[in-house]
Amino acid sequence: MTRVRLAAPEDAPTVARLLHDFNTEFEEETPGVEAMTERIAATLRSEEITVLLAGESPEGFSLLRFFATSLTSPTDGREAYLAELYVVPDRRHQGIGRALLRRTLEHCRERGVVWIFLGTSTDDEAARALYESEGFTNREGGETGPIMLFYEREL
Amino acid sequence: MTRVRLAAPEDAPTVARLLHDFNTEFEEETPGVEAMTERIAATLRSEEITVLLAGESPEGFSLLRFFATSLTSPTDGREAYLAELYVVPDRRHQGIGRALLRRTLEHCRERGVVWIFLGTSTDDEAARALYESEGFTNREGGETGPIMLFYEREL
Repeated sequence: MTRVRLAAPEDAPTVARLLHDFNTEFEEETPGVEAMTERIAATLRSEEITVLLAGESPEGFSLLRFFATSLTSPTDGREAYLAELYVVPDRRHQGIGRALLRRTLEHCRERGVVWIFLGTSTDDEAARALYESEGFTNREGGETGPIMLFYEREL
Repeated sequence: MTRVRLAAPEDAPTVARLLHDFNTEFEEETPGVEAMTERIAATLRSEEITVLLAGESPEGFSLLRFFATSLTSPTDGREAYLAELYVVPDRRHQGIGRALLRRTLEHCRERGVVWIFLGTSTDDEAARALYESEGFTNREGGETGPIMLFYEREL
């Protein structure tokens, strides 16, 4: 079983490198490892983000952002945005992503999260299968509802 | 031109009613107007959320959540999640949603936001057309990229 642990501010260079690799692989813009290290360190320190690291190298990470108050849920609690979930290319299809996601959801529950959301690409079939098998849906209001889309823009 | 203004904590009952109407119309769970009023008042006060109100009745609202540090952008700046954008049913197709969205993006720019995202339903063609005509995309990495999906689950 893959060991998953919470990242500390000292892990910022490792997280920055993983995030940089993620951005590069998915052809997203990236501020570069150095700028990212500073931002990651500052946001880990201020608890603006929470990062979980899987394995010793490490082999993957998840990155969470929390909202203290849920407005969407009938229950009191927090909300979480799963901004990233990444496993390094040569360690995929070995259950690391699933172990990471499960521990991430467990961590969210421990922090009082009642609702979590994320955006992913239609193309990323492995990720979609993982999310769907772990209880996520992209259907609005139930199984037969319309598909929900993720939109973004720069400002 | 529709007047759009920032909501103050005193507007919580109005915002809660609009949010309740939104949830009811889209068959989402809702904590009810009373519980919602408390949460809205508290989160407006703590600046955990920002709400913009359109028109005098008011006829619509947008609800934003901010992240102080962007990890995705090469530029320093904040990120914003547009959690809701709603126009009351009998005032639709009159440009209120567009005025509200434009003022919301302007407000984001004033607050240093460099990236904004949201989730919407495939079915909501009016909303999608509005977002797309105001510069949002649901394609990853450019016009010909794969569609991005919004996933969620309760915990």
